[in-house]
Amino acid sequence: MAVLCRPAVAVPEHVITVEETLELARRVHAGHPQLPLVLRLISNTGVRKRHLIRSISETLQHPGFEVRNKIYEEHAKQRVPAVITQALVNSGLREEDIDLLVYVSCTGFMMPSMTAWLINSMGFRHDTRQLPIAQLGCAAGGAAINRAHDFCTAYPESNALVVACEFCSLCYQPDDHDIGSLLSNGLFGDAVAAAVVRGSGGNGVLLERNAASIIPNTPEWISYQVKATGFHFRLDKRVPTTMEPLAPALRALVERHRWNVGELDFYIVHAGGPRILNDLTKFLGVPPVAFRHSRATLTEYGNIASGVVLDALLRMFDEGSLADGARGLIAGFGPGISAEMAVGSWLPAGSRRPIPQPRDESMTVVRSVGGR
Amino acid sequence: MAVLCRPAVAVPEHVITVEETLELARRVHAGHPQLPLVLRLISNTGVRKRHLIRSISETLQHPGFEVRNKIYEEHAKQRVPAVITQALVNSGLREEDIDLLVYVSCTGFMMPSMTAWLINSMGFRHDTRQLPIAQLGCAAGGAAINRAHDFCTAYPESNALVVACEFCSLCYQPDDHDIGSLLSNGLFGDAVAAAVVRGSGGNGVLLERNAASIIPNTPEWISYQVKATGFHFRLDKRVPTTMEPLAPALRALVERHRWNVGELDFYIVHAGGPRILNDLTKFLGVPPVAFRHSRATLTEYGNIASGVVLDALLRMFDEGSLADGARGLIAGFGPGISAEMAVGSWLPAGSRRPIPQPRDESMTVVRSVGGR
Repeated sequence: MAVLCRPAVAVPEHVITVEETLELARRVHAGHPQLPLVLRLISNTGVRKRHLIRSISETLQHPGFEVRNKIYEEHAKQRVPAVITQALVNSGLREEDIDLLVYVSCTGFMMPSMTAWLINSMGFRHDTRQLPIAQLGCAAGGAAINRAHDFCTAYPESNALVVACEFCSLCYQPDDHDIGSLLSNGLFGDAVAAAVVRGSGGNGVLLERNAASIIPNTPEWISYQVKATGFHFRLDKRVPTTMEPLAPALRALVERHRWNVGELDFYIVHAGGPRILNDLTKFLGVPPVAFRHSRATLTEYGNIASGVVLDALLRMFDEGSLADGARGLIAGFGPGISAEMAVGSWLPAGSRRPIPQPRDESMTVVRSVGGR
Repeated sequence: MAVLCRPAVAVPEHVITVEETLELARRVHAGHPQLPLVLRLISNTGVRKRHLIRSISETLQHPGFEVRNKIYEEHAKQRVPAVITQALVNSGLREEDIDLLVYVSCTGFMMPSMTAWLINSMGFRHDTRQLPIAQLGCAAGGAAINRAHDFCTAYPESNALVVACEFCSLCYQPDDHDIGSLLSNGLFGDAVAAAVVRGSGGNGVLLERNAASIIPNTPEWISYQVKATGFHFRLDKRVPTTMEPLAPALRALVERHRWNVGELDFYIVHAGGPRILNDLTKFLGVPPVAFRHSRATLTEYGNIASGVVLDALLRMFDEGSLADGARGLIAGFGPGISAEMAVGSWLPAGSRRPIPQPRDESMTVVRSVGGR
């Protein structure tokens, strides 16, 4: 069975507080007719501070898509390796033990991908599989964990490394003045996160089942407009309402696993904004404290896109309150509108509980395909 | 075991012959100091014609990255569904039987990805997993097959659909005049290809083992420069020499499977250019006729990036000369320099030979990880 080991997370050294964000919005958008609404929306995010790869004055400049993408590459190469090294130490493995390298990032575009650079620059084997994903946005944190889980299910002697590198500040577009853009400017932060999924051995979250879901006909709710100036993030005002249609998918996954969604021991979800967490308490029937780790990520770092679930997981590992076998849910949400979800249980070091076998009927996908 | 079913391929209606390509190069680059070399390189590709999504005059214009990307989206939505429908018919499955949708394309960028649009627009289930890959270039055809294979190995009752959509003509950059760019302008073509990988049932290529490999320190040999004008393809003159360092990885995969690389019954490889095919005959010790399907793709369509392996596979299916159990190799090559490789055997309809079980020791990855 695949075990998601303790993640590693690093946030950059430049900090912007919510007070600085609000002051900046007042100054930059002084004449904006909906400034009071924007200020209220930013205040309501619950974000207290965010971390950025560069100073605020540098962040506010747009030197062109080409230069920005080079800044992405430079900072990724500078900041990702140390986080990977820590994630490997946390897992008890070394670079050469990794068979699949999943790298998710929607804030810069490189071909060859960072996976090729990492294989060349660190101690990974030259036959490590590369899986770079750029188009799943904030859902990619959940997707990366799930594809690593699938891989380790296929090859139980294998290990996968998941890396989420998001420099959202490089998608700041000074000419976008719609409400969604101004809110995003006060919501997103930069971070690098990584975690190992071990096919055998290790401790952490035993990944037992995963699933994906898409809300029909919502592709324009979260999207990139691709322009000469780079990626322009488009956030529709309907996005905060997405938990009502997604909660049934979360519930269905948990029920297929014969657990009750309202009675789990941990909930690690993408904290896109405060409404998502508030609505989940309502639609899943769980108290707000259940989302304390996701809320802490949002408060301390802002929305760090695909990195949120890994950072919230790290906070859960740090809290250290889970008993052997504690049951929980992990979910990333993003453009589509899509969810990538998993259920698993806490497997501490030295656990002696029997580990369910992946080939049990209850562990595989339930729908069976006829041999037409 | 995973079975790669008969692919479907469509090329667009606008055709440019090699004679027209050469005439165009002579006219557009009349004063280029290395024009004779460029003309010779283009002639030597062996490409006789290519298919384009738009007329040559439209192709030669650069209306800006934003408009180009919209053209990509429009043509992808217009051209991909029919190819998917045909691939499903070929596999005996329907949209609702697909559990994983792998969409590979390096010639346009969308978020949400085309996977979300396909789920919304065709009959796929809303819990279909989405795996869009944009950064593996021409190797993505092999990678898509291999990740589908892994998924069906993890969940043997599942099915995956692989789609390669490449409109290389949308990466034409009129201001790039280096030799690599001018050669690429005469080499790449547009196409859409798709195939189903069935976890159980079906006939075609029984996928038995896969592997990846990267040539150390060659990231700049094939790359995109990301600019305000879009993706600028960079092709180094050392690329044609890549088969010498990659052939040992192909050989090693085949030998791990206890087969002999020089004695296989089929070879389906990415035909990036003629030198790749010529060198493989030398380094693998097989006759040129072994690469007839890949060569036919190159001749008829040019280099259609991630679509090459699927089109060459379709030609192999069409030829219909393989006996039950015939053994072969599939390989995509691309930026990194990376290879995504697989070995498998021919499983015709009604075959009664025993199918190897994926859990046999010989079927899983050979390296075992200690429980450190």
